[in-house]
Amino acid sequence: MRLMLVAGTTRTAEREGISAAGATRDLMLHTPSADAEILEYGELVRAPVTPVSPTGCPTPAAVTRAVRERLGFDVTVVDGGLAKPTGAPTVNVGAKPGRDVGEADPVQTAPGAFAAARQFGRSLPDDELVVGETIPGGTTTAMAVLRALGEEWPTSSSLPENPVELKRAVVEEAFAASEIEPGQAAHTPELAVRFVGDPVLAVAGGLVAGALEAGTEVVLGGGTQMLAVAALVRHAGVVGPLTLATTSYLLADVPELRAATAAHDVDLVVTDPGFDAADAGPLSAYADGVAKEGAAMGGALYLADRADALESITTATLDVLARLRDDDGP
Amino acid sequence: MRLMLVAGTTRTAEREGISAAGATRDLMLHTPSADAEILEYGELVRAPVTPVSPTGCPTPAAVTRAVRERLGFDVTVVDGGLAKPTGAPTVNVGAKPGRDVGEADPVQTAPGAFAAARQFGRSLPDDELVVGETIPGGTTTAMAVLRALGEEWPTSSSLPENPVELKRAVVEEAFAASEIEPGQAAHTPELAVRFVGDPVLAVAGGLVAGALEAGTEVVLGGGTQMLAVAALVRHAGVVGPLTLATTSYLLADVPELRAATAAHDVDLVVTDPGFDAADAGPLSAYADGVAKEGAAMGGALYLADRADALESITTATLDVLARLRDDDGP
Repeated sequence: MRLMLVAGTTRTAEREGISAAGATRDLMLHTPSADAEILEYGELVRAPVTPVSPTGCPTPAAVTRAVRERLGFDVTVVDGGLAKPTGAPTVNVGAKPGRDVGEADPVQTAPGAFAAARQFGRSLPDDELVVGETIPGGTTTAMAVLRALGEEWPTSSSLPENPVELKRAVVEEAFAASEIEPGQAAHTPELAVRFVGDPVLAVAGGLVAGALEAGTEVVLGGGTQMLAVAALVRHAGVVGPLTLATTSYLLADVPELRAATAAHDVDLVVTDPGFDAADAGPLSAYADGVAKEGAAMGGALYLADRADALESITTATLDVLARLRDDDGP
Repeated sequence: MRLMLVAGTTRTAEREGISAAGATRDLMLHTPSADAEILEYGELVRAPVTPVSPTGCPTPAAVTRAVRERLGFDVTVVDGGLAKPTGAPTVNVGAKPGRDVGEADPVQTAPGAFAAARQFGRSLPDDELVVGETIPGGTTTAMAVLRALGEEWPTSSSLPENPVELKRAVVEEAFAASEIEPGQAAHTPELAVRFVGDPVLAVAGGLVAGALEAGTEVVLGGGTQMLAVAALVRHAGVVGPLTLATTSYLLADVPELRAATAAHDVDLVVTDPGFDAADAGPLSAYADGVAKEGAAMGGALYLADRADALESITTATLDVLARLRDDDGP
């Protein structure tokens, strides 16, 4: 088993009110680079600070790292368009940072990165992959990609109040600026990503398509962005068993996920890490609907549950956060 | 403990008769990319074939991977100027492939990569690092770098007959083409690497210097190229405990390594993996003086010996090689 984190950026995240994946707009572009370091080292190396939401909710990468420390699996980070330096080693499939989806052609590297990631996914030696993402603003681009594929499923948000109207306006703007209409990319998923998506969807879509083609079992660890990845894979004509492993917080926000996964022949597994307990400290924000998912957290919790280790994850995550606080300094 | 492999290239390797780190001249540039995949996955992912010497001796990366499978430590690959795609994740510190040392300024990225790797080495969270290299042609550039620092120590070779006269001629050519004279870079090690070296030495030198500055214990896993790294670190004015862990095959080729390590305040540890035994198969070429070292092999064997696991490494390496043969196809 190998956990793959596709880490990248879209400047769509810099729009006011779109994402909670960073304390400030300026720090948001650092979040994927920092998440990659947290998964790889359990500490920051080059990134400036531990990612938190504007209200201080810690990044889900800390949860994924805690599960990794408990279970001991390999992690491989794939560069899905990182904009800031990371000390984590990354696989390069040619993705570049995504531009704002309001631009005409925001992800020009999408078709090439999709193809290279697909070839890479076909060649990996593992029997099972858990694939997750980290990209601030990614639920907005995921919504646009679903629409480009002709699908009306809703997407979640890292904010406790999903800014649905804002997202819809951005998606409309994306289609107005681009060469495609909603539904027009149903058979060309890499063009959906190129014209209204983000580079992480291109890389994750290619990676999962290639892995399935090679007979690898794939668990998508995450929420509605990983649903968009499943949709891209199915629209590419790739069959094979897929599971989406998410958190109870995500499903509470988007109950339509049950029908959406079923519609794509994807099994749904939902795990409740119990962050509503009295001893959960800053993780209790998750129970209040902040963050909800990200950095393969749902996939990691599924692995922890499968290994009968779910109960120890709150304590293990608080340990990781304590170490990260030391890195952040006073 | 973390094993760091600095993987890169110098076109110096393309000169006839310089290196055995590849079956042919054309395949040589793929060797570091393949070695990185072997350490990371135990199989090839993007690289075309398993690196072997012209006479079929398998890459030392298979030995390092076998030790990793036995002991289970983390591996991080740092891009020291890779020229071909690799499926292994790599940390980027700005190194580019090195040009032939006969050119005037073959490693322009050396000072920047040295500085970035030093900063990265300072930030790593590990208590102990084992650092190795993979770069065909690297013993020739290491010889030139030692001369630039004013040191006369010999370097080894991946060939059973060290082409010393050819190397000396290349080193003379390097100084004739460059702006520095032998001994002139004694206090500016990054300029030694820039004008007569290779990008792997720049990255490994910076990484080790930074790690020592942060109080991390460093084991250099390798032969005379890692001696050159130790020299770069000492000439950068960095003190701190250093160990060079090498194979018995390397020491048999360069007995001066005892005095050379002592002169740089470096402890020497020598491990004999016993590849002269009847059951060693293609590994017996090591006992005949082919390859000898590389891809952190000496460091990995030291770890295996420390864990009382040395006896199992021959069998474990043959297992890795059998898997790699399947990848190579018929």
